[in-house]
Amino acid sequence: MNFEGMRVMGIDPGLTRCGLSVVQAGRGRAVLPVAVGVVRTPSGAELGERLHRLFEAVSEWMDDYRPDVVGIERVFERGEVSTVMYTAHAVGVLVLAAEQRGIPVHHYTPSEVKKAISGNGRADKKQMTSMVTRILGLSEAPKPADAADALALAICHCWRGPALARAAEAQERAAAKQKEWEALATQRRRAASNN
Amino acid sequence: MNFEGMRVMGIDPGLTRCGLSVVQAGRGRAVLPVAVGVVRTPSGAELGERLHRLFEAVSEWMDDYRPDVVGIERVFERGEVSTVMYTAHAVGVLVLAAEQRGIPVHHYTPSEVKKAISGNGRADKKQMTSMVTRILGLSEAPKPADAADALALAICHCWRGPALARAAEAQERAAAKQKEWEALATQRRRAASNN
Repeated sequence: MNFEGMRVMGIDPGLTRCGLSVVQAGRGRAVLPVAVGVVRTPSGAELGERLHRLFEAVSEWMDDYRPDVVGIERVFERGEVSTVMYTAHAVGVLVLAAEQRGIPVHHYTPSEVKKAISGNGRADKKQMTSMVTRILGLSEAPKPADAADALALAICHCWRGPALARAAEAQERAAAKQKEWEALATQRRRAASNN
Repeated sequence: MNFEGMRVMGIDPGLTRCGLSVVQAGRGRAVLPVAVGVVRTPSGAELGERLHRLFEAVSEWMDDYRPDVVGIERVFERGEVSTVMYTAHAVGVLVLAAEQRGIPVHHYTPSEVKKAISGNGRADKKQMTSMVTRILGLSEAPKPADAADALALAICHCWRGPALARAAEAQERAAAKQKEWEALATQRRRAASNN
């Protein structure tokens, strides 16, 4: 499997602010920045209108940048209840937009992203932003924080994607091997009962 | 405002099972059943595929039955974490489907629905099902539970919608009155400073 040139969209989900990024995997661990931005929806508007605006914006990003895969942050039951629920509603329409275009989505916890980028699952925002800036060779730190988080998610998938794909391949090979064995065992049982 | 003939879709949101119903408001507190069903998505499938299937199914229901308004259960952080999150993702695409058709969505807590239907915010499933069956004049209880819940949500909106609309109208009138007063006060201040 070849990952060089793979386009990854990173999404830091949210309804008030949603970070979006696109990067391209280069040779080895090289990652090239393509785009980064934040979609905002007015907190005073109805839930339906906000979800619709977010859905339209992310759909446009996907059509413009045509990512091969999406890396999105997994939502946890943490922080203020209504914020978590709004974020979970947002994830619903973000994942739907990807599915409608046949783009696979991978979910990463915040600590998985931190660990992948900085080697430390508890890295703080400042460390993360500085690592993202350095990895992408940017002249200045990406702003706001949601944009940096979206880039970190995309880089995380560039680096973890190949390992995940290898693991999936190994699992497939193991399952095929298992099937072969089972078929062989069935054949032997049949042969034994026919004698 | 006339509510007779208003078509209400009730949604008991979920990803594994999502209850859908359509009822029509009659004279006074009469409510007529139109349709009821449950959309299921396979728990083994990817999140994206499940959300897409649910989105397509509810979109079809909305296009077939053309409800004027949707009543949906508000999701709470209760029960198993991953189930709550999946339900919240489902709500995202359900609300989006309504918004794309310009159908307003009202959110009701389980106890608001129970209170509206049975007069008791803590009514159990059996009481609720029996009330729903009686209100709609059905010959037997709707099944499964998600279908009965979806009907209860729709009836709840039929009965609470008019009160909510009256409240909104009263609020608008009060706001208009306030504006009038403010305009008058400004006029008086101007007149006073010109003398």
